[in-house]
Amino acid sequence: MRIGIYGYGNLARGIESSITQNADLELAAVFTRRDPATVKIKTPNVPVYKNDEVISHKDEIDVLIICGGSATDLPVMTPELAKNFNVVDSFDTHANIREHFANVDAAAKDSDHIALISAGWDPGMFSLNRLYANCILPEGNDYTFWGRGVSQGHSDAIRRIEGVKNGKQYTVPVEAALQAVRAGENPELTTRQKHTRECYVVAEEGADLARIENEIKTMPNYFADYDTTVHFISEEEFARDHSGIAHGGFVFRTGVTGWERENKHVIEYSLKLDSNPEFTASVIVAYARAIDRLYKEGSRGCKTVFDIAPAYLSPLSGDELRAHLL
Amino acid sequence: MRIGIYGYGNLARGIESSITQNADLELAAVFTRRDPATVKIKTPNVPVYKNDEVISHKDEIDVLIICGGSATDLPVMTPELAKNFNVVDSFDTHANIREHFANVDAAAKDSDHIALISAGWDPGMFSLNRLYANCILPEGNDYTFWGRGVSQGHSDAIRRIEGVKNGKQYTVPVEAALQAVRAGENPELTTRQKHTRECYVVAEEGADLARIENEIKTMPNYFADYDTTVHFISEEEFARDHSGIAHGGFVFRTGVTGWERENKHVIEYSLKLDSNPEFTASVIVAYARAIDRLYKEGSRGCKTVFDIAPAYLSPLSGDELRAHLL
Repeated sequence: MRIGIYGYGNLARGIESSITQNADLELAAVFTRRDPATVKIKTPNVPVYKNDEVISHKDEIDVLIICGGSATDLPVMTPELAKNFNVVDSFDTHANIREHFANVDAAAKDSDHIALISAGWDPGMFSLNRLYANCILPEGNDYTFWGRGVSQGHSDAIRRIEGVKNGKQYTVPVEAALQAVRAGENPELTTRQKHTRECYVVAEEGADLARIENEIKTMPNYFADYDTTVHFISEEEFARDHSGIAHGGFVFRTGVTGWERENKHVIEYSLKLDSNPEFTASVIVAYARAIDRLYKEGSRGCKTVFDIAPAYLSPLSGDELRAHLL
Repeated sequence: MRIGIYGYGNLARGIESSITQNADLELAAVFTRRDPATVKIKTPNVPVYKNDEVISHKDEIDVLIICGGSATDLPVMTPELAKNFNVVDSFDTHANIREHFANVDAAAKDSDHIALISAGWDPGMFSLNRLYANCILPEGNDYTFWGRGVSQGHSDAIRRIEGVKNGKQYTVPVEAALQAVRAGENPELTTRQKHTRECYVVAEEGADLARIENEIKTMPNYFADYDTTVHFISEEEFARDHSGIAHGGFVFRTGVTGWERENKHVIEYSLKLDSNPEFTASVIVAYARAIDRLYKEGSRGCKTVFDIAPAYLSPLSGDELRAHLL
């Protein structure tokens, strides 16, 4: 199976290394909006092309993985590229998934291709766990916690404040809330009770720290509804302690069964990830395998993780899966 | 969707109450090997028939859920009933799944039906989590822990010992092992290091307790490889404290990504269940919905949880799922 990578940032580098962990997959080409001569990839003997040449390489690629941002890149790129390729993306703006799905579905069906959107861990593995658990326990409550990990959006918001040189924001689940959910207490949790926000900020020389801290803590949508702590640190500390890309989180479903709904059950799924982009990439690569197989079986149009039978993700045969994993 | 229940024990009663939690499903009939006049079910106005009359009711049933034991019932019942019904079972003898699959697949294909075997939580939800996690992290380690919960097979083994009136065995995961796995230490764990076994025994009057304890602790396969504790208790204590049917467990996959395999990841799935049979029943009922839909789409033959796209388990439309759970 020949994989193309469209865009070459953190996620794409994760895709590139994930391909080396899957013997049935190979990297065919990388497409970049930069000058290809300046882009050095790690895989030997694989060409790097300018992204606008992608269509001329369509016969060399079975699945094109699109590594772009959800805000402005993917809403345009994925429907456009689905006209000529089988594609997978990691579109993660929950509120716009239905619109994105409709656009990609139309493009893929018109051109006789298959596409999978929103692969990763949330949306992705967390969504799958929400779905399975909701089907098994129709009467119950859902809880999703994120972290401890970096939120890109919140870090960007900090960096836009005047006087801020650099900043990083960690989303942290509240331990007491986790414990209450895990104990089956079905708590009703406010935004503030679920997560705290920890900010590490490098200020410009002479900046008014009290003003910066206040601007962060009172920022609507991003911080005002949370217990937020702000730590001012040096550039050296920032570089030494806050270059990590770890993340993770928890999905719970608590529900009841029995004639009197007298029996409680707790389903918990959690991820602890050293590298958010590499784990996301690993999910995407498994789904790229599934998409290629489904295409060869005649399946067309846009899919999500909900539409893919799990066996398609594995290089093993059905018989091997039943023997070793069932 | 009209569900038939074949066999009426603990699991079947769980199926019966689960159906009341799913508005699109209804119980059509119960079949029992006992005298139907002696079997009182909880659902009003639903007939109870003798199991050998089942074929004459085939037009009243969309999916027949077979509630029998894996040792001797299901290997015969499921292939036989698949000749006339779409069926779901919870066959859980891991070592014989391939043979059972082949028998049910042949019967279902010959008669133009669909079947799903081995629904529940292990095999079932635990298998799904092993599969997904193995596909995402191809280089890593799997760990499954069971408990705290009652093992029927081990309890039966205790009760076969001379001088034992009643007995129950709890499988308990070793907390230190759980913690080491959760911390990503990739421990190599012996059988003894993963689980302990707690036995609660009611002895007959005058029985030799030391002999009973020794026979339990040295029993090959069942107890000899474990740290086993034996508690002798009264019949009153047994009835009061050990009638529970709670169970649960943990599935972990720990793996690495990155060009140098330098980043570690931990995927954890766990269940805490007040009622093992009711939770198992809830999984089966969701898969019965999927099987009925797949049958109507033209799918035939034997399936497992690996072969079913998650969306089929839900009564919601694809659009609703994408809007609310993705």
